[in-house]
Amino acid sequence: MTDLAISFEDVAAAHARIAPFAHRTPVLTSTTADALVGGSLFFKCENFQRMGAFKFRGAYNAIAQFTPEQRAHGVVTFSSGNHAQGIALSARLLGVKAVILMPIDAPATKVAATRGYGAEVVLYDRYGEDRDAIGRRLADERGLTLIPPYDHPHVMAGQGTVAKELIEEVGPLDVLLVPLGGGGLLSGCATAAKALCPDCRVIGVEPEAGNDGQLSFRSGAIVRIDTPKTIADGAQTQFLGNYTFPVIRQRVDDVLTVSDAELAATMKFFAMRMKIIVEPTGCLGAAAAFGGQLDLRGKRVGVVLTGGNVDMARFASLIADAA
Amino acid sequence: MTDLAISFEDVAAAHARIAPFAHRTPVLTSTTADALVGGSLFFKCENFQRMGAFKFRGAYNAIAQFTPEQRAHGVVTFSSGNHAQGIALSARLLGVKAVILMPIDAPATKVAATRGYGAEVVLYDRYGEDRDAIGRRLADERGLTLIPPYDHPHVMAGQGTVAKELIEEVGPLDVLLVPLGGGGLLSGCATAAKALCPDCRVIGVEPEAGNDGQLSFRSGAIVRIDTPKTIADGAQTQFLGNYTFPVIRQRVDDVLTVSDAELAATMKFFAMRMKIIVEPTGCLGAAAAFGGQLDLRGKRVGVVLTGGNVDMARFASLIADAA
Repeated sequence: MTDLAISFEDVAAAHARIAPFAHRTPVLTSTTADALVGGSLFFKCENFQRMGAFKFRGAYNAIAQFTPEQRAHGVVTFSSGNHAQGIALSARLLGVKAVILMPIDAPATKVAATRGYGAEVVLYDRYGEDRDAIGRRLADERGLTLIPPYDHPHVMAGQGTVAKELIEEVGPLDVLLVPLGGGGLLSGCATAAKALCPDCRVIGVEPEAGNDGQLSFRSGAIVRIDTPKTIADGAQTQFLGNYTFPVIRQRVDDVLTVSDAELAATMKFFAMRMKIIVEPTGCLGAAAAFGGQLDLRGKRVGVVLTGGNVDMARFASLIADAA
Repeated sequence: MTDLAISFEDVAAAHARIAPFAHRTPVLTSTTADALVGGSLFFKCENFQRMGAFKFRGAYNAIAQFTPEQRAHGVVTFSSGNHAQGIALSARLLGVKAVILMPIDAPATKVAATRGYGAEVVLYDRYGEDRDAIGRRLADERGLTLIPPYDHPHVMAGQGTVAKELIEEVGPLDVLLVPLGGGGLLSGCATAAKALCPDCRVIGVEPEAGNDGQLSFRSGAIVRIDTPKTIADGAQTQFLGNYTFPVIRQRVDDVLTVSDAELAATMKFFAMRMKIIVEPTGCLGAAAAFGGQLDLRGKRVGVVLTGGNVDMARFASLIADAA
């Protein structure tokens, strides 16, 4: 355990660091949702987090630990969207310059919001160019500190505060369902959950088309895939991280997948029955709960809703097409 | 004061009665919204209430006080939607038969949801027929007890628990903005607010096309208008009630109006910036806050969001057309 990137103490320290600046997001329940699965679901609503997603937590936790010299030079990152906004907002709050590398096909709301927070946005083609290389070059050229979207201990610890808050509010859980992209959120949440309620089964949920995490978890080595095409734009990662994967192997119990059709149906459920807007990626955990893969009867189930940043036109179109 | 229909004690008793069955809805805040008005806004999210609107509170409070004989015969009501669902759900929870008179042009989601709760739905033409007369005839013929949507002390007291919860959670307010249809919510909330923080200015907000409440408040007598055409389908009332109007005159400080365009723009703000779905009627109070009619700088402002029951197609269309 000692060689893992983060411990519960890191999550607790992150929580003390971000609590004055992050929203303590509400936990919603739904009798309709409970009836569907036969258990008690607790939805942790990070779509109500600042900038609309949990990513603010990890970003703030990372930049807040910069040295004075790092703060003076600035931060750079690459992101399909929410991490970008998290870095941009955190940097502004901490008075640090931010440069964000975003894919050309990122949702327009996310690009606009990132620029709105005062960050410089550099666009690249995610199907052709290597974002890591571009990010590292920018960092070298300008003396910027690179904070990647998930594979960084300070980011992971920050994201773990989601599960810490949830369990502290509702009590011990039998199951915790967490969307999985690169594993920052899952590794952090698993670390918090296993410390606070060791019997809780922690399950990561990926889009079917982007099942690198499941392949990696089951084979015991990081598996790389091509950039997956899925409506879950926040989980289009190609591989788990060198920091996140060992934590996931140690502290996570399983990784499941759901289809894009299940994500759209879940997004519609949230809109019509619970009156909340959850982006496709944010529906991963809930779609697994509703999909019948797990026997949740009589169980207390935490479900992380990661974000709500979706273009209104895209939202309307996905809802209209959903089952 | 003694001849008014409800006192704060009635609201407190209603709260004890409904608390085990109603959701204690969250209060959301938004730094973006605060920046727009220069004050601190506290949004009481009754769109997250059971059946998607505050109406559950008053309906449950009324039926829970039925005599055994009334319970055996059943309840009847007329409603454009949310009160119908509130009565239907409350009746089911209390084992009472419910008959609901609904306008033919009520939103399809509301008719379906009402039937889904096991109620018998009777449709009528709201531009041609007198719903009061039909309701009273049904009540006579079948021995049902009529619980009208707003003009009933038990309904008013139940709705007042919205403001009681809000103020107990966030502390004293300088201003409280409450959507106004027939005045059940406004009279109840004003009663709670003036008891808990007497200096709070309580303001009702109506759609421009349905300004009977403003005309009545300013003239000192109940003014009747034709059924107004507005997107705020929950505020298409033609006149305040014999119980609600005296309470409003005594305990409310002003009544303002907003346009349908302001309602649609506010609905879009909630969706895009706060990730919540609020029906047009539910946006009345917030639209007044954003519209610049009030100087809210430095003020602590409570805003009641009454419900979230809107067809997804209608929601998408209103959002697409909004400013």
